[in-house]
Amino acid sequence: MSTPPTPPAEPLQRHLISDLPEALGQTVTLQGWVYSRRDLGGIRFLLLRDRSGVVQCVFGKTELPLAESCVRVTGRVAESPKAPGGLEVHAEALELITNAAEPPPIEIPKEAWHVNPDTLLEYRHVSLRSPKARAALKVQAELVRAFREVLSAEGFTEIFTPKLVAAGAEGGAALFEVDYYGKRAYLAQSPQLYKQIMVGVFERVFEVAPVYRAELSHTSRHLSEYLSLDVELGFIDSDEDVMALEERLLKAMMRDVAERCAPEFALLGAAAPDLSAPFPRLTLLEARALVRERYGHQTGGKDLDPEAERLVGRWAKEERGSDFVFVTNYPQAARPFYTYPTDDGLTRGFDLLFRGVEITSGGQRVHEYGTLIAQLRARNLDPEAFRGYLEVFKYGMPPHGGFAIGAERLTALLLGIANVRFARAFPRDGSRLHP
Amino acid sequence: MSTPPTPPAEPLQRHLISDLPEALGQTVTLQGWVYSRRDLGGIRFLLLRDRSGVVQCVFGKTELPLAESCVRVTGRVAESPKAPGGLEVHAEALELITNAAEPPPIEIPKEAWHVNPDTLLEYRHVSLRSPKARAALKVQAELVRAFREVLSAEGFTEIFTPKLVAAGAEGGAALFEVDYYGKRAYLAQSPQLYKQIMVGVFERVFEVAPVYRAELSHTSRHLSEYLSLDVELGFIDSDEDVMALEERLLKAMMRDVAERCAPEFALLGAAAPDLSAPFPRLTLLEARALVRERYGHQTGGKDLDPEAERLVGRWAKEERGSDFVFVTNYPQAARPFYTYPTDDGLTRGFDLLFRGVEITSGGQRVHEYGTLIAQLRARNLDPEAFRGYLEVFKYGMPPHGGFAIGAERLTALLLGIANVRFARAFPRDGSRLHP
Repeated sequence: MSTPPTPPAEPLQRHLISDLPEALGQTVTLQGWVYSRRDLGGIRFLLLRDRSGVVQCVFGKTELPLAESCVRVTGRVAESPKAPGGLEVHAEALELITNAAEPPPIEIPKEAWHVNPDTLLEYRHVSLRSPKARAALKVQAELVRAFREVLSAEGFTEIFTPKLVAAGAEGGAALFEVDYYGKRAYLAQSPQLYKQIMVGVFERVFEVAPVYRAELSHTSRHLSEYLSLDVELGFIDSDEDVMALEERLLKAMMRDVAERCAPEFALLGAAAPDLSAPFPRLTLLEARALVRERYGHQTGGKDLDPEAERLVGRWAKEERGSDFVFVTNYPQAARPFYTYPTDDGLTRGFDLLFRGVEITSGGQRVHEYGTLIAQLRARNLDPEAFRGYLEVFKYGMPPHGGFAIGAERLTALLLGIANVRFARAFPRDGSRLHP
Repeated sequence: MSTPPTPPAEPLQRHLISDLPEALGQTVTLQGWVYSRRDLGGIRFLLLRDRSGVVQCVFGKTELPLAESCVRVTGRVAESPKAPGGLEVHAEALELITNAAEPPPIEIPKEAWHVNPDTLLEYRHVSLRSPKARAALKVQAELVRAFREVLSAEGFTEIFTPKLVAAGAEGGAALFEVDYYGKRAYLAQSPQLYKQIMVGVFERVFEVAPVYRAELSHTSRHLSEYLSLDVELGFIDSDEDVMALEERLLKAMMRDVAERCAPEFALLGAAAPDLSAPFPRLTLLEARALVRERYGHQTGGKDLDPEAERLVGRWAKEERGSDFVFVTNYPQAARPFYTYPTDDGLTRGFDLLFRGVEITSGGQRVHEYGTLIAQLRARNLDPEAFRGYLEVFKYGMPPHGGFAIGAERLTALLLGIANVRFARAFPRDGSRLHP
């Protein structure tokens, strides 16, 4: 009955392309994809791509396989001032691992030439292989990692809350409906109510998870499914503590990513934000006056419109040297019922703009049961629909607050990606459920 | 127009309860919840709970608020051999932060006395505050953190793939249906197809995200929504590389968590697994023979039944000193179409059992387009329904494989929690969508 465990196969002595500068003059084995190939008669070039980069491999008469085939190349690393990265591999052997059955639908090295974003998104499962697409998602992964690391170091605990819920956190608009064992459920628009409950357990919590908005508007900044970076903390004095945390957090995330992802920033031509100045703060009223008086722009509605956001961001950059700016003290009418109200009809709710676009809503929340009931009624919402949520406020919730950052929007603004769809691997919107 | 940034409010000099051993003899300010109170005539005891623990605070005639009220206590830290933890706080001041409006529906310190799990789950938003409930979720958060850290150190990149999909990865059973802008979509049962696509981008990827199973069976080991820890890696030689990675990963996770969460393990009476032995391996055929010959148990069906899993786990523990055991070489009929087939009608697919319960399915995947089409047809699945997925296999996928670990099941088995629902903050099943 005995089955001695098989010893692990001797791992292949494989080099990553990013390690080649330290292997000059040595013979190495690389694995990866045929990024492109070129035949100059007696000499053939293969650009090989692996997860760490691209390198030129030089062959004699060897037959080179189709683009995107998987191959193993063995050869000697040599300096080559003309080659990308300043070195190349003088190939001695080429082994085909998996042959591409046909040329890819998109020429991946020429991705940028495809002006139609719909084509790139239709073939996203292939176009993601381009170094630039890969770089954007890599930066996003590092942003998320830094988010967790900074918060963990400040005593926060990660939580995992349900995305299948019985009612929307904000009252019901733009919800996706789910057939839940014959009953009606919805996809959560935010973990708002759950992260507040979890403040009663861990005091300081964060979550990284998808959220859902059945947005009908087809804009370059909205997705139907996006990654929300959520934070909530208890025993605060005011929204000031929340903003101070978010500023500390974002500065640390930006510094960390700029350092870890220097090659990705260079590839994308992206500039790290200037973080030397404190994030300036304007009340919403001040922000409205600013864009009217300084830029002649009249904002309608309860909130700032996109042009007003852009102008406030411009002011912050020009006058305060900051890519970020907080807009504070939103009116109660512009905020959900759980936002901490102040006597002047305003709230302790804020937005944070990054390069002129909103990336966060946050604020202090109501922590007293009676105030919550009153806030729901003032908005014509039925307290019964929020029963499970309200219940916890009967049993002692500390003053608390938090915020949520949209990961794709943050990534797109950081890297200069105009359409937020390209800051998500497989974006979902009103007309896209594939691939 | 100038709004100088408000300086952050001076943070309260607050001590955490876990810091008190270093503050003996000092006067400290604590914040937290009234865990319980006791009146012994001239002397009153308040057990105070914060995110780090529970401590006894001793008062004179002070009126103590209802359980679960939020309070601030100032007092001197003194040794007290009879008090929990060996010390207590001689209180000088009590400040009420938020009064509980009524006693909680569950006596949180007596949580274990509530024998009806449905009651605990109905009031989960309150019962989560118990130190034991909190400890289980804390251990889970640390397991997930270790999962990410180990993989990041091995060159893996985190991915975020869609949970709203057009078709199921396995063909269609147990899917939740979503009304997606008037069209039909489903909640993803697994990121399987997407993580494979992402091997073409990053070679080594992981994801931590919810997945959905419309399970009709109401068992103590199934949830409708659970957290899946997914891994996939390219350029492997066989499923051996995948198992070696999973063994390395789980051992590192278990060691890390046992160290970081010693107080939580002690509170829950949980034992860290013995990790000194290699994880033993049995083929499925060997496992069936083992339970039949050694324990007289006959397994039906294509897979091991729960009793057979338990017996294989027992064998691994008794004979090999391991809490884990791999069951390998599943037959093709018991595995999805994307599992790497071998000539004998078997596959390079495996399960991993932990303490006699399956926590992982994994294996090597098919990486060749033609083989995938053949595998789909052999299962009467329509290749057209998998078009977006198949597409990528036309363009060079390396040999690859991976696995998924159910986070709640892993947590429950590690901590001796009999019902997996208590290893999730807000569990969802056929009869539960609240709170």
